[in-house]
Amino acid sequence: MSQKSPLAPKRFPKMPSIDGLTMASTACGLRYRGRKDAMLAILTPGTTVAGCFTKSLTASAPVDWCKSAVKGGFARALVVNSGNANAFTGVKGDKAVIQTVHAITELLGCDKKNVFVSSTGVIGEPLPVDKLLKAVPRLVKKAKPGGWLDAAKAIMTTDTFPKGAAAQSKIGNKRVTICGISKGSGMIAPDMATMLGYIFTDAKIDQKILRSCLKSAVSRSFNSISVDSDTSTSDSVLLCATGVANNRSPRSARDPILKGFRNALNAVALDLAQQIVRDGEGATKFVSISVTGSYNHSSAKVIAFAIANSPLVKTAIAGGDANWGRIVMAVGKSGEKANRDALAIKIGGVQVTKDGFRVPDYDEAPVSDHMAGDEIVIEVDVGVSQGSAKVWTCDLTHEYIRINADYRT
Amino acid sequence: MSQKSPLAPKRFPKMPSIDGLTMASTACGLRYRGRKDAMLAILTPGTTVAGCFTKSLTASAPVDWCKSAVKGGFARALVVNSGNANAFTGVKGDKAVIQTVHAITELLGCDKKNVFVSSTGVIGEPLPVDKLLKAVPRLVKKAKPGGWLDAAKAIMTTDTFPKGAAAQSKIGNKRVTICGISKGSGMIAPDMATMLGYIFTDAKIDQKILRSCLKSAVSRSFNSISVDSDTSTSDSVLLCATGVANNRSPRSARDPILKGFRNALNAVALDLAQQIVRDGEGATKFVSISVTGSYNHSSAKVIAFAIANSPLVKTAIAGGDANWGRIVMAVGKSGEKANRDALAIKIGGVQVTKDGFRVPDYDEAPVSDHMAGDEIVIEVDVGVSQGSAKVWTCDLTHEYIRINADYRT
Repeated sequence: MSQKSPLAPKRFPKMPSIDGLTMASTACGLRYRGRKDAMLAILTPGTTVAGCFTKSLTASAPVDWCKSAVKGGFARALVVNSGNANAFTGVKGDKAVIQTVHAITELLGCDKKNVFVSSTGVIGEPLPVDKLLKAVPRLVKKAKPGGWLDAAKAIMTTDTFPKGAAAQSKIGNKRVTICGISKGSGMIAPDMATMLGYIFTDAKIDQKILRSCLKSAVSRSFNSISVDSDTSTSDSVLLCATGVANNRSPRSARDPILKGFRNALNAVALDLAQQIVRDGEGATKFVSISVTGSYNHSSAKVIAFAIANSPLVKTAIAGGDANWGRIVMAVGKSGEKANRDALAIKIGGVQVTKDGFRVPDYDEAPVSDHMAGDEIVIEVDVGVSQGSAKVWTCDLTHEYIRINADYRT
Repeated sequence: MSQKSPLAPKRFPKMPSIDGLTMASTACGLRYRGRKDAMLAILTPGTTVAGCFTKSLTASAPVDWCKSAVKGGFARALVVNSGNANAFTGVKGDKAVIQTVHAITELLGCDKKNVFVSSTGVIGEPLPVDKLLKAVPRLVKKAKPGGWLDAAKAIMTTDTFPKGAAAQSKIGNKRVTICGISKGSGMIAPDMATMLGYIFTDAKIDQKILRSCLKSAVSRSFNSISVDSDTSTSDSVLLCATGVANNRSPRSARDPILKGFRNALNAVALDLAQQIVRDGEGATKFVSISVTGSYNHSSAKVIAFAIANSPLVKTAIAGGDANWGRIVMAVGKSGEKANRDALAIKIGGVQVTKDGFRVPDYDEAPVSDHMAGDEIVIEVDVGVSQGSAKVWTCDLTHEYIRINADYRT
């Protein structure tokens, strides 16, 4: 395993338990030796659920299952394994999912559509499902409140640190808690979703409204990050609401009572997503890219990602080189409307170009100082209209090559 | 400068002179010391011209000029400099182009719309145009038939070898010759064009028909390669036909008399384009990707480029790892129609997956042997319909990072 990312948070956050949720994790030996590789979450009956999944057309068997199950709107259990993605495994892959779901329903006495399954790891190898099935009774028996750190560790693959985030807010006069874990490090690109993320809350929220909350949180978090522009076959974000907080039910997705909850959820989702970037394979710099002045929000996002995904921009950042010419190039290749003669670029807050030209008194020294740090801020105004977007990425380094040229061997 | 690419052709080809064309190259000291950095081609009056240019919205001043000039359909001169792209240089950049064009028209007594200009190199630095202007009279005076190797060298930037290709064919009973040079190594991606390429012929072909010939040649050559998915602001391909061969004029773009010429042109364009891939920054392996069974040709091209541009596929190839799971992932992320349960992948001619599953008797040994070589062949059938496309790329290595993290510094 690689060394812990230099961009990792100092420590795993303190995370409270969620009423109505118990968890357990264990080592099944699916691929890794001597570490946990499976987790189970058990949710109280009546828990509502919303999900966002990869748009990949070669999605894994578990993703196919979850996409269908989530339509039911309720969750009783979630099983996640690492080490094997159960992707591109044909009929055998579907069978492994069914067997896993069946093992849970037997023990919990719930409907199979209330059981969610995720797998992450190598693509194309059959999942040794017997090992997972053998662990299920043990997981059910061990499940108890809390256990975030163990769960976050059990879902890691090439991650160098476990990822968690928590927040509290109020709905009406009831305090509600939101806790989430995520994993992801490579094969990260924006096309919902790009990793695994599980967020739990004790809030009582109807599934339709929950879906709206998740969708908008994901759009500006998990769907606004990129490590390497590659979209995984397995990625999923689930939001489960146990309802134990027994707050007054929001009447619609726009009910003002939800304001605090939405803010807290957005913060948890953004924190989890940014931690994935901070654990980007080989990353040494965390990069924020803001695009303003574009035709609309989605056009701004396309331009921001053209910059974020450009190997030439990413290698320049790795080298601490304030090569803003490559930013100009990336804006140009995005294909979105941009006014070359009004293009304004700031790096680390310093104006580099304005009105389509390098500023006359440009002094590279403060920009180079900024580039030498590990938090890089790039701002681009394309001078067309009022659209804006923000995305996060990391640099492209030798270590990325090292990790990915030897992953399977 | 980097060492010569291990994928470089053994030697620069023998290239005949083209009747109606003279050339010269020289060192102006624009950026590099002790090497040629400018070339001039002088074409006989009546030479027809066709061009394809970058679609970048931040295109360079010379590209803007050429896009407009090429509408006139005739060429008398072409000036190319390396070391500075004259891109994102605002009004000063446009002025530098006009001055260069003017210097040529003064000496040749031709219309300014018959003068073509290209620049390649660093983006955003003002072009020291006085140095170029000073060299123009010298270039005009020195111009003579041949000189391909010097011209190919003068247009290099991070290239590690000069690129040329030649072919002959017949139009009716007249023998015609086609010679071309190109440059490119990084910032190479398919969005017409992705480097500089200049092709000359003594054939007599009307500019409208010439445009059709160039467009189809470029589509399956320069527009079917990718080094790093980044599209340059400067890239241009020009085809100039002096007409001195005095062949019977083709009546239309579909005139059967053109068959041999089109084949020869396609071969020259493909050879020049593949040499750019062979000089891909840090490349150690030349990769051919064929996609068949897609909805149509353009869909096949999107899928092929999703594979070719995937950093995870490219790093696996660098590591000699037959990680076909990443090919499945790339097909999925392309967004194009693919039948996961019919997906068939061959690597080095060996069937790896079939009917959406790894072949039962899969033996990785011959595939690993193939991956250890430096010419990698990947074939993917997506099982939808009859569309097909072929693209070429190279691996992503430590050397790419090294070159691009220190380019400017």
